[in-house]
Amino acid sequence: GFAKIDHHRTIRQGFPEVIFCQGKTVEQVATIATRLAGHNNNLLATRATHEMFEAVKLSVPDAVYREQSRLITVKRDETVVDPDRFILVVTAGTGDIPVAEEAAITAEMMGNTVKTVYDVGVAGIHRLIAQYDLLQQANVLIVVAGMEGALASVVGGMVAKPVIAVPTSVGYGANFGGLSALLAMLNSCAAGIGVVNIDNGFGAGRLASMINQMR
Amino acid sequence: GFAKIDHHRTIRQGFPEVIFCQGKTVEQVATIATRLAGHNNNLLATRATHEMFEAVKLSVPDAVYREQSRLITVKRDETVVDPDRFILVVTAGTGDIPVAEEAAITAEMMGNTVKTVYDVGVAGIHRLIAQYDLLQQANVLIVVAGMEGALASVVGGMVAKPVIAVPTSVGYGANFGGLSALLAMLNSCAAGIGVVNIDNGFGAGRLASMINQMR
Amino acid sequence: GFAKIDHHRTIRQGFPEVIFCQGKTVEQVATIATRLAGHNNNLLATRATHEMFEAVKLSVPDAVYREQSRLITVKRDETVVDPDRFILVVTAGTGDIPVAEEAAITAEMMGNTVKTVYDVGVAGIHRLIAQYDLLQQANVLIVVAGMEGALASVVGGMVAKPVIAVPTSVGYGANFGGLSALLAMLNSCAAGIGVVNIDNGFGAGRLASMINQMR
Amino acid sequence: GFAKIDHHRTIRQGFPEVIFCQGKTVEQVATIATRLAGHNNNLLATRATHEMFEAVKLSVPDAVYREQSRLITVKRDETVVDPDRFILVVTAGTGDIPVAEEAAITAEMMGNTVKTVYDVGVAGIHRLIAQYDLLQQANVLIVVAGMEGALASVVGGMVAKPVIAVPTSVGYGANFGGLSALLAMLNSCAAGIGVVNIDNGFGAGRLASMINQMR
Amino acid sequence: GFAKIDHHRTIRQGFPEVIFCQGKTVEQVATIATRLAGHNNNLLATRATHEMFEAVKLSVPDAVYREQSRLITVKRDETVVDPDRFILVVTAGTGDIPVAEEAAITAEMMGNTVKTVYDVGVAGIHRLIAQYDLLQQANVLIVVAGMEGALASVVGGMVAKPVIAVPTSVGYGANFGGLSALLAMLNSCAAGIGVVNIDNGFGAGRLASMINQMR
Amino acid sequence: GFAKIDHHRTIRQGFPEVIFCQGKTVEQVATIATRLAGHNNNLLATRATHEMFEAVKLSVPDAVYREQSRLITVKRDETVVDPDRFILVVTAGTGDIPVAEEAAITAEMMGNTVKTVYDVGVAGIHRLIAQYDLLQQANVLIVVAGMEGALASVVGGMVAKPVIAVPTSVGYGANFGGLSALLAMLNSCAAGIGVVNIDNGFGAGRLASMINQMR
Amino acid sequence: GFAKIDHHRTIRQGFPEVIFCQGKTVEQVATIATRLAGHNNNLLATRATHEMFEAVKLSVPDAVYREQSRLITVKRDETVVDPDRFILVVTAGTGDIPVAEEAAITAEMMGNTVKTVYDVGVAGIHRLIAQYDLLQQANVLIVVAGMEGALASVVGGMVAKPVIAVPTSVGYGANFGGLSALLAMLNSCAAGIGVVNIDNGFGAGRLASMINQMR
Amino acid sequence: GFAKIDHHRTIRQGFPEVIFCQGKTVEQVATIATRLAGHNNNLLATRATHEMFEAVKLSVPDAVYREQSRLITVKRDETVVDPDRFILVVTAGTGDIPVAEEAAITAEMMGNTVKTVYDVGVAGIHRLIAQYDLLQQANVLIVVAGMEGALASVVGGMVAKPVIAVPTSVGYGANFGGLSALLAMLNSCAAGIGVVNIDNGFGAGRLASMINQMR
Ligand SMILES: Nc1ncnc2c1ncn2[C@@H]1O[C@H](COP(=O)(O)O)[C@@H](O)[C@H]1O
Ligand SMILES: Nc1ncnc2c1ncn2[C@@H]1O[C@H](COP(=O)(O)O)[C@@H](O)[C@H]1O
Ligand SMILES: Nc1ncnc2c1ncn2[C@@H]1O[C@H](COP(=O)(O)O)[C@@H](O)[C@H]1O
Ligand SMILES: Nc1ncnc2c1ncn2[C@@H]1O[C@H](COP(=O)(O)O)[C@@H](O)[C@H]1O
Ligand SMILES: [Mg+2]
Ligand SMILES: [Mg+2]
Ligand SMILES: [Mg+2]
Ligand SMILES: [Mg+2]
Ligand SMILES: [Mg+2]
Ligand SMILES: [Mg+2]
Ligand SMILES: [Mg+2]
Ligand SMILES: [Mg+2]
Repeated sequence: GFAKIDHHRTIRQGFPEVIFCQGKTVEQVATIATRLAGHNNNLLATRATHEMFEAVKLSVPDAVYREQSRLITVKRDETVVDPDRFILVVTAGTGDIPVAEEAAITAEMMGNTVKTVYDVGVAGIHRLIAQYDLLQQANVLIVVAGMEGALASVVGGMVAKPVIAVPTSVGYGANFGGLSALLAMLNSCAAGIGVVNIDNGFGAGRLASMINQMR
Repeated sequence: GFAKIDHHRTIRQGFPEVIFCQGKTVEQVATIATRLAGHNNNLLATRATHEMFEAVKLSVPDAVYREQSRLITVKRDETVVDPDRFILVVTAGTGDIPVAEEAAITAEMMGNTVKTVYDVGVAGIHRLIAQYDLLQQANVLIVVAGMEGALASVVGGMVAKPVIAVPTSVGYGANFGGLSALLAMLNSCAAGIGVVNIDNGFGAGRLASMINQMR
Repeated sequence: GFAKIDHHRTIRQGFPEVIFCQGKTVEQVATIATRLAGHNNNLLATRATHEMFEAVKLSVPDAVYREQSRLITVKRDETVVDPDRFILVVTAGTGDIPVAEEAAITAEMMGNTVKTVYDVGVAGIHRLIAQYDLLQQANVLIVVAGMEGALASVVGGMVAKPVIAVPTSVGYGANFGGLSALLAMLNSCAAGIGVVNIDNGFGAGRLASMINQMR
Repeated sequence: GFAKIDHHRTIRQGFPEVIFCQGKTVEQVATIATRLAGHNNNLLATRATHEMFEAVKLSVPDAVYREQSRLITVKRDETVVDPDRFILVVTAGTGDIPVAEEAAITAEMMGNTVKTVYDVGVAGIHRLIAQYDLLQQANVLIVVAGMEGALASVVGGMVAKPVIAVPTSVGYGANFGGLSALLAMLNSCAAGIGVVNIDNGFGAGRLASMINQMR
Repeated sequence: GFAKIDHHRTIRQGFPEVIFCQGKTVEQVATIATRLAGHNNNLLATRATHEMFEAVKLSVPDAVYREQSRLITVKRDETVVDPDRFILVVTAGTGDIPVAEEAAITAEMMGNTVKTVYDVGVAGIHRLIAQYDLLQQANVLIVVAGMEGALASVVGGMVAKPVIAVPTSVGYGANFGGLSALLAMLNSCAAGIGVVNIDNGFGAGRLASMINQMR
Repeated sequence: GFAKIDHHRTIRQGFPEVIFCQGKTVEQVATIATRLAGHNNNLLATRATHEMFEAVKLSVPDAVYREQSRLITVKRDETVVDPDRFILVVTAGTGDIPVAEEAAITAEMMGNTVKTVYDVGVAGIHRLIAQYDLLQQANVLIVVAGMEGALASVVGGMVAKPVIAVPTSVGYGANFGGLSALLAMLNSCAAGIGVVNIDNGFGAGRLASMINQMR
Repeated sequence: GFAKIDHHRTIRQGFPEVIFCQGKTVEQVATIATRLAGHNNNLLATRATHEMFEAVKLSVPDAVYREQSRLITVKRDETVVDPDRFILVVTAGTGDIPVAEEAAITAEMMGNTVKTVYDVGVAGIHRLIAQYDLLQQANVLIVVAGMEGALASVVGGMVAKPVIAVPTSVGYGANFGGLSALLAMLNSCAAGIGVVNIDNGFGAGRLASMINQMR
Repeated sequence: GFAKIDHHRTIRQGFPEVIFCQGKTVEQVATIATRLAGHNNNLLATRATHEMFEAVKLSVPDAVYREQSRLITVKRDETVVDPDRFILVVTAGTGDIPVAEEAAITAEMMGNTVKTVYDVGVAGIHRLIAQYDLLQQANVLIVVAGMEGALASVVGGMVAKPVIAVPTSVGYGANFGGLSALLAMLNSCAAGIGVVNIDNGFGAGRLASMINQMR
């Protein structure tokens, strides 16, 4: 077979294998999704096209497509592990929202309460400061920013909680497909920041979930 | 003055400002250290030379120099927040140990139990598998690796706990000063990994400490 | 003429010139294929479009198109040089299969027994360890992986046979078109690994064939 | 001769040619300095070594060496063009001060009032906000920052005056010699920012002076 | 809401928030434009498609689309701050005109007199020298150039006024999407040049406007 | 006007301005072509689309479109400066021919005898050695190669005449759009090689023509 | 302990663990060497300084230092696996010899017959052609070249045996520390070439040995 | 032997092999120089240290060391091929002179008249225009420039003769070791420019000599 599904993953890592759809054929996605949906309560597929969703829906009728974040989700188990502890997803601009939604929905799928604050980039720092209390209450923060990616440093300096930084490819010219935000986040002078790949909302959501559910 | 010391940081972030010695003069380091040591129980200075340590010692007699990790430490408060939960620092090779020690001592300074497993890189995977139980018991993991940085992915796939990946500049040629390990870690197919800057043991220790002390 | 076909190559290198279709016009590919098919038993064209295949088929009716790997093949000589020695092609993920197939079919075309194990990436290392015996039996191994390319190092450490590593452009963001896997493979801490160009399944198959047929 | 001194420059650009000492021999610097000091009231040489200064001093006895910024200055004309309008030089960290001093002294040499605020990086944003009034009063701002270079965006969003951003090579690892701060500043989401070369304090001072003296 | 509009910006920075349309949906642009047009006299949206303009026009009937520069403009306040002082926009080639127009219209929208001289690149230096008087009269200059970006240095050496340099992505091959012009401008041996992002006509116009309106 | 045509160029440089069509509108190309064709005997436009040619043809009926090289040519003056001296254009592969044709036709347009030898890349060095006499007779050589660009070094070592090396973007993966061939040519261990931009057949033809017509 | 020596490696891979000295302290090297020399017949340490050798010699008196290649060797077992089959190491220039020697001695240490041909770079192709017979007789070839790295392609096209290509950092300027040769070798139009890291003579020797000893 | 000296080169290319000293030992340089000096009238060694010169002088007493350009020269044949035709070497700054001298002396050694104009960079374009007549009289031009490398484009647009452009590593920050000047020269909008490697004065002198001696 073309895929060795890692059914053991739920036991090993607390959530079933997630399908990364990019570079797979529609048939491959549908086959894997069907097999996973038969073994698990919840299912997540990232970077899915609408066509992939249509193919999955044929055998997994409770699958849902989340347009903006390009996720296919199946949520049969609605348990939230610790409802009062929440993950806060923050974006610098409007253009970063699709990646932020990928992170937020991923974390929700894994049983977390998630809140969002969008478009509070550092060029108007009062917008961020207005959210001071919310930032303090969050248990884990995900900061999503393109262009100069400065928001991660500012947020990182305001809170004493772990920050997951997600550089995005939003921008043009010397952003070189997200490199500017990536380097900025890696070089942050605020400590306590872990960086994931450019546009990797899923990875951020997964890591934030792990941290949020520690006790 | 040349430095606006952030004395408020202990309240805001639970640990006083850490001195990044690189690019500072011996006098600047000594002055800042003296002021911080007067206000705080603990003190940490990173990337310090032996000469800087000598200057600090004049006014902070309980300062200690940690040769391999190039840290200056003052530890007056020996509290460990939650002694049973430990952070595990893992390295791929012997050459990665200085960065690993920077991470381990940083985390200890911040009140964590830290354990280490060194030289278990993926070219002899049985060395890593032999540590399976220890990996499972850890609450947070720090993986330090240069060259191809593959250890982060393998460890990330074995545990359900957060992994902080630290690429190092160990290697030569097409490692381009740590770029190879950095890119590998950012592109890891294992989810739940947060990456810090090349050789940034301090940042990894700080982030691991934050995560380890969540409850 | 636009092409100086290297008819001497079969004598010099044991296999006729292979057509690299990318950047050639449909007419050029058809003309070269027709001339080569007249002089040789076997024919291989890489990175061919379906349209190129249609044009080739007009004058070479026994040409076959291999959709996934984008190869045109003509196989009139079915000799296998040494049937018991096999080349093993291993992929990290499902998305790497097209490149793996290019390698596998190339090696088969050159008279080798080829076996494949797909989707055994390092994020679930047990999937790879389950293939331990097969890995040991292989005479030459081709490891195909995108993203962090860590599979080459792990396989390289498990076997005492030559490993050909093929980085793929599978991934996004800081994979920079395959650069992350390429650098990882070049910096592998496992010795005995030779690397080919990103997505160069053909080159890997050709080199593996040369090695497999040594005696 | 080895140098075509641009004596016409004072008329054309309001300040005599400035000597860029790096890559010149001690003799060349001394010769050029002597000739320029004979024709002009003020003299500025950048990136000078102490040895170059000693050589210049022999024939230009009123030359002064500014250790931290590595400038040689001769200031015979103390005119300040418009004393109430000041240029404000801001740094993120202590390590950025040498570049900031190069900028500040350059602007002073060209007849400007200059004020400085050092070590107000974004990881402790309250330090910057505490300077709000001073920022508003400045006529032109120079922001000097290494690592993630985020300070330029935050300052740029707080003022309605031109900001000159100077990335520095302060940092390590993925800062790639100042590239991280450079890209961040070029991609700033705050408009009204002009960027100069990495560590180019002189260029920033010169441009700020031109802007400050417009009327 | 998806966007935290910075209505305070007109007070803080003298011009309302500008909509960066790239990466936003048509609906998002229309909603933001409608809200901004209700609060402000003037409105500017950059990198807009014709489809976005059509959507904006429904609720903002006096919106105009500027094809070449891809701007949507609403200009209700025709005040020019200081009509005799003008900003001069200079391009190296014909292909740089769209970026130059983005800069010129941005500056006009903000109340400046703007003049333009196009296609005076350095390969025929007499074309530039023929504009000597105009260059001298300008209060601020914007130099827009792709390929080798040399025009910024030549203009910078001819005038004693601030020059804003805009590298463009015009060119091919080793221009690497504008990198060649960007690096050239950052390394200019002419002092008094501030650089903005590749193709960032808007940023150049905004910065030039700030400088031109100082007094 | 949008273009300052450099009519003086024929006197200054021996050939009228050449139109670089990329990034210009169809109207701009047609207008410039019409004006140039009215002042000059010959006309050359590079990187033209078929649509641009159609527009030019309306007012310049003797214009010709050269499909493969994407050139528009008008040749009224058939003088060849020195018919016995010829420029030899050599390519490594078939995919390099479009760039080679751009070079060859450019040189012909400027009054040179041009010969071509295509597809003699170094992987079958006998193909090149078979052309030994022709290589020796050439007065100037243009070597066009993508991928590893090795042909320039081999040809450069075989002749005592100037070699113009043109890297092409032919290849994939780690060729990074022609970077591999460009770097190889710049680092050639054979002296006497001048390199032009990736895919810049025009520039190579122009330089070769200048050299070929020296006396 | 600081090192988990992989004593199992001789069984698993046919040769004991090799010590990579760079980044290790003198003490670490001496300790590891002593332990390995106690368990194995042969010992190899790469990138060793003379000081490291002195320390090793104290407890391993039969250790030898190979100046040019910076290897420490202990050879107690002089078996050559198949004396008639030889590995041929070829260099482009004199400057590449240290890396070539690292490869040659590595292969000899592992029981191979090794021959060398140095300084036959492509700028004087007759030097290489003069070695035609030797090239044909070789069983495996290692090609070591810096600058444009073209030798790998030319040799690869002349033989039907596997070629291991080693890019070196020999050169300057746009060779970017070996990048030019690396990219050239990866993009070679000759098939049957496996590339190792820049300056990685050891890796090439190890891989060539594996291939040479297949049967 | 370690070097296969290419004694045939004088016949093949009109000048004996030139010794590239970098990366060679003092002994190797001395041995090669002695052998070449016995077979040839003239001798040239580039990038030589003073120590290498001392060693060469022992057996080649008429060898001369050219400090600034780091060349060792032996000139026994003083023939100038065509004294009236001269090569003009132009530099942008004083710091580019060592590379310019390498080019100038190389060309003189090969029998050319060479003139030089130094320090006429584009930031003071009148300095270049003052040399208009000399530029027109030159038969071939070598333009040596670091930083933004703009001089090549301006000179290229002023003359109808071939221009060899040599980027230098003079500069700092975003010049990335000469990359800025290299890219600028490759992207020059002036046609008729051939580029050599960063700091490669030798290559420029050799190519200019070839062109200057054509007839
Ligand atoms: N080794 C390190 N790497 C990165 N950041 C550090 C390091 N050591 C200290 N820091 C951070 O740098 C800040 C101080 O920067 P500075 O103002 O330049 O002294 C500290 O508060 C830490 O957050
Ligand atoms: N073409 C442009 N390039 C860079 N920045 C822009 C551009 N157009 C608008 N902006 C900035 O982007 C900000 C809005 O970003 P956003 O919140 O994503 O809409 C505006 O306030 C401007 O400062
Ligand atoms: N394919 C080409 N590549 C590089 N430069 C070119 C090309 N075609 C024309 N040129 C140059 O570009 C100049 C015109 O540029 P422009 O003013 O933008 O039309 C011509 O005079 C040529 O020197
Ligand atoms: N400075 C230099 N830069 C580039 N190539 C050079 C230089 N000096 C000499 N060469 C070339 O290097 C060749 C010798 O290389 P090698 O065999 O390593 O001594 C000479 O024949 C020259 O063609
Ligand atoms: Mg916004
Ligand atoms: Mg080890
Ligand atoms: Mg999988
Ligand atoms: Mg600080
Ligand atoms: Mg033009
Ligand atoms: Mg071919
Ligand atoms: Mg040689
Ligand atoms: Mg000068």
